[in-house]
Amino acid sequence: MTLSALDFVLASKRSEITGLQQLLQMGKLVGAVSQLIHVLQRERGTANIYLGSQGKTWGDRLSERALQVQLAEQAVSQQLAALDLHGQPMANASRLFSRIAGVLHSLSTLPSLRAQVQALSIQQPDAMSRYSEVIRIHLALVFEAADTSGDPSVSRALLAMFSFMQGKELAAQERALGAAGFTARHFDEQTHQQLLALIVSQERCFQTFTEFADPRCLALWQQQLSADSSEFERFRRIACTRATPSGEASDVALRWFDVTTARIDGMKIVEDLLEDVLTECCRQRIRDAERAGELQQQEIGQIPRHDPHYAALIPPQLSRSVLELVEQQSRQLQAQDAELAGLRTTLAERKVVERAKGLLMQHHGMSEPQAHKTLRDMAMNQNKKLSDIADAMLSVAAVLGKSAS
Amino acid sequence: MTLSALDFVLASKRSEITGLQQLLQMGKLVGAVSQLIHVLQRERGTANIYLGSQGKTWGDRLSERALQVQLAEQAVSQQLAALDLHGQPMANASRLFSRIAGVLHSLSTLPSLRAQVQALSIQQPDAMSRYSEVIRIHLALVFEAADTSGDPSVSRALLAMFSFMQGKELAAQERALGAAGFTARHFDEQTHQQLLALIVSQERCFQTFTEFADPRCLALWQQQLSADSSEFERFRRIACTRATPSGEASDVALRWFDVTTARIDGMKIVEDLLEDVLTECCRQRIRDAERAGELQQQEIGQIPRHDPHYAALIPPQLSRSVLELVEQQSRQLQAQDAELAGLRTTLAERKVVERAKGLLMQHHGMSEPQAHKTLRDMAMNQNKKLSDIADAMLSVAAVLGKSAS
Repeated sequence: MTLSALDFVLASKRSEITGLQQLLQMGKLVGAVSQLIHVLQRERGTANIYLGSQGKTWGDRLSERALQVQLAEQAVSQQLAALDLHGQPMANASRLFSRIAGVLHSLSTLPSLRAQVQALSIQQPDAMSRYSEVIRIHLALVFEAADTSGDPSVSRALLAMFSFMQGKELAAQERALGAAGFTARHFDEQTHQQLLALIVSQERCFQTFTEFADPRCLALWQQQLSADSSEFERFRRIACTRATPSGEASDVALRWFDVTTARIDGMKIVEDLLEDVLTECCRQRIRDAERAGELQQQEIGQIPRHDPHYAALIPPQLSRSVLELVEQQSRQLQAQDAELAGLRTTLAERKVVERAKGLLMQHHGMSEPQAHKTLRDMAMNQNKKLSDIADAMLSVAAVLGKSAS
Repeated sequence: MTLSALDFVLASKRSEITGLQQLLQMGKLVGAVSQLIHVLQRERGTANIYLGSQGKTWGDRLSERALQVQLAEQAVSQQLAALDLHGQPMANASRLFSRIAGVLHSLSTLPSLRAQVQALSIQQPDAMSRYSEVIRIHLALVFEAADTSGDPSVSRALLAMFSFMQGKELAAQERALGAAGFTARHFDEQTHQQLLALIVSQERCFQTFTEFADPRCLALWQQQLSADSSEFERFRRIACTRATPSGEASDVALRWFDVTTARIDGMKIVEDLLEDVLTECCRQRIRDAERAGELQQQEIGQIPRHDPHYAALIPPQLSRSVLELVEQQSRQLQAQDAELAGLRTTLAERKVVERAKGLLMQHHGMSEPQAHKTLRDMAMNQNKKLSDIADAMLSVAAVLGKSAS
């Protein structure tokens, strides 16, 4: 059978809807991962207090935290089971599945990490970096999911969400590092620097978030910001400047943990709204596309199918009707092209920067803020874009046979 | 059932292979479209000579040209029938199918155009612009196909092919315009300018081609270039500068047509090699991925499946084996990321420029070279990138409610 222009108009609309439905599924997966990261962050902070106090504080809470993580893992598993691994491939499926494999493997390393924490057979900094690595792998999955979007409004929502999640993770690292220091009643110079860098990096991520977020999320975030207490700022100042904080170690540490946890839980509320906005955006786009598809089918139903033989002369009125439908579908898609191209470029650049940072972190033992500063300084010195520097670094690494994750 | 990291490693490899197989299919479709464009170009030139000679020359050849186009259409139809419209969606499927709908509709307008040409009831410039529009729609499909690639080496081959096809189309427009002028024994000032612009634009396209083409194609192209005859250059000079060429009109026109056709047929040989390189590149990448997939499965077969219960402690050696496989798949994909990001940016920028040119051509009646010059002059005056200017133009057009195709 020879396929006609209208067959492909219909197929185009159908593919558009399928793509949006897959994005909705991605949105739900990202939501479940956001919750999993949230409880992992809390488990990391709790482990830091437990290890920092030589097992005196919060030993009883460790198993509760682990249980919360397991529940969140199950929710992620449910979303993963909804993915059809053998059927319809999604855009970017191979990269996405590869990231999911990384996530699942990282989760399988948690039981042995927990056993070491419980037995106090691991140092606090080592435990912290292992938890942070697990969380980093989860964030990389969210980033890859953002790259599957072929719709500008959804891309925008995913970029806002990813940037916010990155900022929240840096805030949670600040909590964990501070908790360890207050518990041990000691902050060395390196920790001061790490804390300062975490504060600067957080602000950078939230700045990106504000560029892409919708007004409701922005308003909620402004509200959260104005709620940051003076107590929190005082704690921050002590952690960043003093070697030995005053007061009873466990009391101060627990108060720090409560104050920062209130802040991070506030961030989670913004993140939940971002997630709602994301899935609502997908649902709205699906409804729009389905409605457009119905109209399309009605109009096509009114067009008599002509003899598909090549030499057939098609009545001009009929040809115009078909042309209108062809152009309508084309216009709807192409209206998004310019914006999507810009977002894709933004994403591609960020991806390269993230990978270059990963390289510096893995092979040169840098923290995320250090890696970012290194790249930024190189870019400023050479008067180039951050992504160009990252690109050059990855090319060199490829030649030297090192791999970035 | 809970899915494991290894399930997703396998799914990632499977998706990679599926994506490459779909690219191979795209490559074959592009090859069939290349042939269809080639015979459409020849039909356009023949129609120009027929119309320019008031029906005295080549009336007998018109039906032969039409038959060749119909054969090429059938080959394209076969490739389209191989696409699974209801099953596995491809990356970028909605845009691709929308372009195919445009192609099929444009082909359905040919019988009535041919009837008008045959009856001499259409002016030569109008017939030429209708043929050129049909060809432009075909080229837009090739461009969209280039955007489906998630593999840098294939993207590179597709970009080289697309740029070359654009250049060849401009060479064929030069042939058709010259044929009309030599037949009518008259070139007005506007035609001189059009011909000059077509020559400059051709060189620009072939320059892009040389940036992305593989060495074999480049060598063949160099060989073609050195074969351009002095007779061809003399013809070009006359067409671009003289108002009334000397000699018997039909003899000169037919000689011009032969000389330029030899040149364009030479280009088709390069294009065929580009097509071979493209499909061979896809096949090679499929073989590589399949081989890697087999090795992966062998290694996975040697790993005992562990109890997927969350709290299970996994033996360290087992965990390391899984990690190696997870990272191997991740490395293979990410090695391509930096290059792919660059190619995607290139493609996205070109897409925006093509659309802005389309806008100028449709709504301001410009030719392709004029539209390009307009954009380039604006970019130079404002000291901006061509794609930034195009982007700004599309944004303005979107606000004004005009659509670009």
